[in-house]
Amino acid sequence: MRVSDLGEFGLIERIKKSVKTDSSVIKGIGDDCAVIKFNKTHYLLYTSDMLVEGEDFTSKDEPYLVGRKALAVSISDIAACGGLPRYALVSLGLPKRCPVGLVDELYRGINNLARKYKINITGGDLSAAGQLTLDISLLGTVEKKKLVLRSGAKENDIIFVTGNFGGSILGKHLRFSPRLKEARFLVTNFKINSMIDVSDGLSLDLSHILGESKAGAVIYEDLIPVNKNARGFKDALTSGEDFELLFTLSLKEAHRLLQKSKDFTPIGKITRQKTGLRLVDKQGREKKLKPEGFRHF
Amino acid sequence: MRVSDLGEFGLIERIKKSVKTDSSVIKGIGDDCAVIKFNKTHYLLYTSDMLVEGEDFTSKDEPYLVGRKALAVSISDIAACGGLPRYALVSLGLPKRCPVGLVDELYRGINNLARKYKINITGGDLSAAGQLTLDISLLGTVEKKKLVLRSGAKENDIIFVTGNFGGSILGKHLRFSPRLKEARFLVTNFKINSMIDVSDGLSLDLSHILGESKAGAVIYEDLIPVNKNARGFKDALTSGEDFELLFTLSLKEAHRLLQKSKDFTPIGKITRQKTGLRLVDKQGREKKLKPEGFRHF
Repeated sequence: MRVSDLGEFGLIERIKKSVKTDSSVIKGIGDDCAVIKFNKTHYLLYTSDMLVEGEDFTSKDEPYLVGRKALAVSISDIAACGGLPRYALVSLGLPKRCPVGLVDELYRGINNLARKYKINITGGDLSAAGQLTLDISLLGTVEKKKLVLRSGAKENDIIFVTGNFGGSILGKHLRFSPRLKEARFLVTNFKINSMIDVSDGLSLDLSHILGESKAGAVIYEDLIPVNKNARGFKDALTSGEDFELLFTLSLKEAHRLLQKSKDFTPIGKITRQKTGLRLVDKQGREKKLKPEGFRHF
Repeated sequence: MRVSDLGEFGLIERIKKSVKTDSSVIKGIGDDCAVIKFNKTHYLLYTSDMLVEGEDFTSKDEPYLVGRKALAVSISDIAACGGLPRYALVSLGLPKRCPVGLVDELYRGINNLARKYKINITGGDLSAAGQLTLDISLLGTVEKKKLVLRSGAKENDIIFVTGNFGGSILGKHLRFSPRLKEARFLVTNFKINSMIDVSDGLSLDLSHILGESKAGAVIYEDLIPVNKNARGFKDALTSGEDFELLFTLSLKEAHRLLQKSKDFTPIGKITRQKTGLRLVDKQGREKKLKPEGFRHF
C-alpha cells in the first residue's frame, strides 16, 4: 500500500495511533497546534508546516512571498487555537545551485512578517535538497481560558467564517494575512466553542471540526461568501489555502458577535452527528455534502 | 553568488545578521539550541534539524534508522546545551509513491527513541516531496544554572570529548545514541564552561566554540580517540556526524572529572584567541590546524 492509497488524513490517523504522550500534553496530533502545559495561566502552542517547491509553491513564485507564506501558515494555526505566536525556527532545504539572493528574499518575507507579528526567529537548520523546502516550527502561548480546539462544537452552535473562499488559487495563498487579530478579538470577547483555519478547504476543514466534535452540520450556499474572482461555488467549498477562520459559538454568543462586528459571516449551524454534513443550495434543496479539499496525497 | 560560493556557515552568518530578537531570547541563531526565557528556574531549549534523502541518508538506509537519526540529532543538540528534551514535532516530505510501510518504519524509529528519552511526539506536518525529507523540531528545558553554550570557553580550560571519532561514515551516524546521560552528568556535577555536539566534525565544531568564545586552542594527536575502524586520523578530525560531546572546563574541574569518571577524554586546552587552533602531532610538532568538516554546501 502506498501513501497515495491511504491518503493524507488516513496517514495522519495511522501516525496518531502509533504515538503516546504524557499528561503534560493537553492536545497532541489532530488539531491546528499541539497544546502543552506551561504555567498557571497559559498553555504553550506548538506547530510546524512544511512547504515544498512544486507542491505548495512553484519555482516562478516570488521567493519573498514564499518565505512570507511559510511563516504565515503557522501563524494561522496559532490563531486558530486562540493564541499569540512568539518564537520560530526555520529549516531550509536548498538546491546547491540556489542563488544567495533567493535565500535573502525568503528571509525578507519571513522577517517582515515576523516583525509585524512580534515573532522571534531563533534558529533553524540548513540542508541541501533537490527542491526548495521550508519547514517552519512556531511556538506560541495562549491564556488557558482562551484556548479553542476543533473538538468543542455543540449542537445548535452557529458556524461562522472570516473573509471569503475560493480565491486561493488566484494568488491569495501567497499573500494572505493570517487572521490573528480577528482570532484574538473572538477569544477575548466571546465564548468560541470550536475553531480551525481553512487550509485544506472549507468543507474538508468543517468536517475536521465535526469529526473532532462528534457533530453534524448544515451550511447554506446562499450564505457562504465566495471570492468575486473564484471560478465557482465549488471552489469556495473545496479549494485549499484560503486561510480564513471557521468557528462555532452558541446562538446567544452569535447574536452578540453580530452586534459587535461586521467582520464575521454566519454560514450554517451545528447539528447532531448522525445527520452528517449537509448543504442547502440556492433552491432550498438540502443534500448530503461530501467533504472535499486539498490533499497532498 | 550561489549558496555553494558562500558556504553553509557564511550563509548562517548572513541570516543571523538579518534577524532581530527581543529580550526574552537568551540565545538565538548560533548555538546548538535557541535559549528562551521560561520561568524562574528554567529556560526553554528549541532546535530543529532537517534530513534529506541523498544528503543525510541514502535510499538504501533502513527507514527505521533514518527516523531514529532524525530525532537523535536534535536530542544531541539539547544535550549539548545541558538540557532535557520534552516535546517534538515531525514534518515529513514524502514521495507520492512512498509505501505506507516506510512511514511506519520511520515512526517506529522515532517512537522508540522518543520513549527511551521520554519525549512527547505532539504533531507535525505532511507534504509531498520528490525526496524523502524529515524535519524534527524539539523543545526541551534546562535549569538556568545548568545551561551551557558554545561561548563560555576560557583560557586554560581543558578540552574534553566523549567517545571516539571518525566512525560516522562506517554507520555510526545512523546508530549513535545521543550523549544525553553524559551531558546531564556533566552539568549536574561540574562547572562546564562551553559545550557543543560534534555534528560537523571535531576540528570544525571546536572552531565554533573558539569563534563564539573568542579563544584559541591546542589539541594533541596522541590524545584524540580515533574509532578503530576509521580510515585514518584525518577522518577523526574532519568527518561529520560523530555526535559526540566536545566541552571545556577549568583545570580544577577537569581534575575532579577525571577522578569521578572514565567516560571523558582530555584532548587539549583553550588558549588565547590570537594563537588560533593548533595541533601537536605524534612527533611533538605543533602546527596550525585548518578547521574542516562536513558542509552541506
